[in-house]
Parts: sequence; C-alpha cells; structure tokens
Amino acid sequence: MEHLEGRQSVLAALKAGQRRFQEILIGHGSHEEKFEEVLELAAQRGVTVRRVDRRQLDSMAHGTTHGGMVAVCSPKQRLDGVGLLELVNSLAEPPLLLLLEGVDDARNLGFTLRTAEAMGAHAVLIKKHLWDFDAVEVARPASGAYERLPLAQIEDVAPLEQLRRQGLALYGCIAAAKRTMYEVDLIGGAILAIGGEKRGLSGAVRDICDQFITIPTVGGAASLSLSHAAAILMAEARRQRGKGEG
Amino acid sequence: MEHLEGRQSVLAALKAGQRRFQEILIGHGSHEEKFEEVLELAAQRGVTVRRVDRRQLDSMAHGTTHGGMVAVCSPKQRLDGVGLLELVNSLAEPPLLLLLEGVDDARNLGFTLRTAEAMGAHAVLIKKHLWDFDAVEVARPASGAYERLPLAQIEDVAPLEQLRRQGLALYGCIAAAKRTMYEVDLIGGAILAIGGEKRGLSGAVRDICDQFITIPTVGGAASLSLSHAAAILMAEARRQRGKGEG
Repeated sequence: MEHLEGRQSVLAALKAGQRRFQEILIGHGSHEEKFEEVLELAAQRGVTVRRVDRRQLDSMAHGTTHGGMVAVCSPKQRLDGVGLLELVNSLAEPPLLLLLEGVDDARNLGFTLRTAEAMGAHAVLIKKHLWDFDAVEVARPASGAYERLPLAQIEDVAPLEQLRRQGLALYGCIAAAKRTMYEVDLIGGAILAIGGEKRGLSGAVRDICDQFITIPTVGGAASLSLSHAAAILMAEARRQRGKGEG
Repeated sequence: MEHLEGRQSVLAALKAGQRRFQEILIGHGSHEEKFEEVLELAAQRGVTVRRVDRRQLDSMAHGTTHGGMVAVCSPKQRLDGVGLLELVNSLAEPPLLLLLEGVDDARNLGFTLRTAEAMGAHAVLIKKHLWDFDAVEVARPASGAYERLPLAQIEDVAPLEQLRRQGLALYGCIAAAKRTMYEVDLIGGAILAIGGEKRGLSGAVRDICDQFITIPTVGGAASLSLSHAAAILMAEARRQRGKGEG
C-alpha cells in the first residue's frame, strides 16, 4: 500500500480510477468544505473515509503539506510490455510515446509526466531495472498527471522492438545528431527517446533507433535538462500533428 | 560577497567575467588535476588561490557538493532598466527577451535560465521587488547559464514600456488566450512574458501586452510549470527565427 498526500493527489487518483483505495484519512479540525468533491467521489466508489488525529497524518506523510488529507491505496499500476502493446493497439490516433532512460530524480520525472500529458503523450516509458522512486515526490510536481497518464516500466529493449514491429518509429534524441527534430516526421506513430544527463541513451537503445534527432541549441550554452528537452520535443510532435490550434 | 560552489560554477563565472573575485579556496587533499583550467584562468586574471582545510569549505558551502572548491566573489550583476536598454541596442539581431513574474523557486529559475540561454534568449528579466533567491540554488541547475546570461531585475513596468517604445513587442503567455504561439510572429524583437503558477501575469503587465498567446495543451491535463512553459515558448521563437537547422 502507498500513501497519497493532499486533496489534489487524492482527487486525481480517485478520478483516474487506476488505484484500489483502502481508506481516506482526514485530520480532525480540517476545513471539510474543501474536501467536498473527494467525499462525494469516495462515497460513489465505496471508499471508507475516517477522521483521525492530525498528528497521525503528519507521521504518515512527508512533512506537513498534506493539508489534512492522506489516502492509503494500492500503488499506481505500471504497464509491462504486453500492457503497453494493448494500449498502443487501442488508440484511435498514431501513438506518441516518450521513453526516458537514466532518470534518477523523482521531481524531474514528475515534471516530465506533467508536460508529456499536456503535450498529448499516450504513455511514458521508463527504462529502469529497479523502480526506486518515491511516489509522493513524483506525484507532487506531476500535478495529477502521475495518476492519469499510463506509465510503463521496461527493463530491456524487447518491448521497444515489439512496438517497432507494430510500425512505430524510434527516435533517439542526442546532442550530436545531424538531423534536427524539425527535419523528421513525428506525425506517424513515434517513440521519442531521451537519456539522462550523465550518460545519455544506452547503447542498447541507440542500436535500435530508426533515426537520431537533436534539439537545436545555441553554441556554448549548457545542454538542456532531461525534463526540458522532453518538453520541447513533445511540443514539436504536437505542433507537427496539427494540434497547435489550441 | 557571495560564495560559488564547485568547479563548474567557478569556471563559468571566471569565463563569463561578470564578477569580481576575492579569492578561490581549494580543499587540502582535492584532486588538483581537475582544477587545472580554473587555476590557469585564475592566474591570468590575477585571482588569489588558497589551500584550506576541507572542513572550512564544508562550513562555507551548502552541504558537501562543492567538490573541494569554493570561490568568494561579488554577486552576479543584475541589469536595471538603463542597462537593459543598452544591451538591447547593442544587439545585431532582433532581441529575444524572457520576462518572468511570480517566480519564487530558485531551482525553477535556474532551470529556466539554462533553457533560455540554450534557446537564444539575449536576457532574462525578472519582475520582483526583493531579490531573495539563494544564488547557489539558482546557479546549480542553471549549469553555467546563471553566469553567462544577462539578467535584469525590474520592479515595475516602466522598463517594459521603454522597450516597447524601442519597437519590441510584449507577448503575454496566458492559458486563456485565443491565439496560439504558432499564430504570432516571434521573429521581430520580442519580450515573452510568463507568470508564476499561482497568480499568472499581473494586471500591470497584462495592461501593456501587445498580444496574448497560449501554448496549446491537451484538454483535462494540468497546466505547464513555469520553466517548462518557458522552454516550449522559447523553442518556438527559435524555430521561427530559422535557427532550427542545428
């Protein structure tokens, strides 16, 4: 079981419906008016709501930013290769997936999920053996996107090869690429791969990329951070897909 | 006097030449080979380098990520309205400025400076009465951009009105705008204004905007964070300016 902290996170998780809720705890003396929407949804879903001492919430949460509400629920589900393929095959438009490798900061991951959702990614794939992110640290900057956006964890490139066989193109974003992101077609089914700042994309992923692309930057400037590179790349895919009309 | 922590920050500041250095301190037992470039530049500029006890560095720095090097120097210079106008008039290409309002997180500011530099901003303007950022917290994620990129602090809109009289267009980025960033011309001299997540752009800035623009996002998704919105907006300006060829 995991803890969700704060009204926003609990509300997003209830709405997304991807977690099993054990119970929702509200601190005595909280302003219950602001919890109205949560209480309604909890009632509809048959989730127990319990009033507890505020210090109990403090002891369950990271610090005191929970605002009087903590939920106990199953972890957010992560897709594996099979689930990912099912998702991709269920889409009515060309899939747009973001693959992250070498992410080790929960906060950066959270911001990246938030931007990926806003730019229309259908799922975010994280290549990582051990899932060691603190869920609360990811969820906070993600502002609800962590609950809503399908997330897949992959341990090797086999799922990527399967997706390529389904017709998706794998674009590796690397600083040294000759082609810019403006020179490739991101309208068809695409996986956009970005590596962490320390090591970039792994050899295993590079070996199966269909094309390498770069985000043009000013000479002499520092490289972009992973989450900001992802934002710019996803926005370009969205622009090409003609979803730029607002 | 301020402290700069770590080889990267000290090197960027020495190269940028915007600060007066009092001295550079190196911890006993550090691997001096990695400081070679710093030592050369320090010698050229006549900056004193002193070997000190490593615990002295620890006590001067935020934690222990200084890696054996701390510099004592004047704060990074911030332009005022007059300096900003001089800078703008000295440019050989149409100015591209980023205006941030309501930023209160030093780390987000640092990331924004880094992306703004990479996307070709000529300066970042921060509208704020009191400059209360921790310089080290800004500098770390900025990865050298904090030292290199001209930074202006403005307290009211008078400098913006001056820039507009010089022919720059002020674009306010707001969620509710009817026009997207793809529908306006960002090739001419431009100030792109983004507000903080809590309150957005102030009435004072909105009142003098030439146009409002929005970054198209998926319905139902959370809004973009300030630093990610800035990244996408700046990248679009760069694309329009035809600097997208890499």
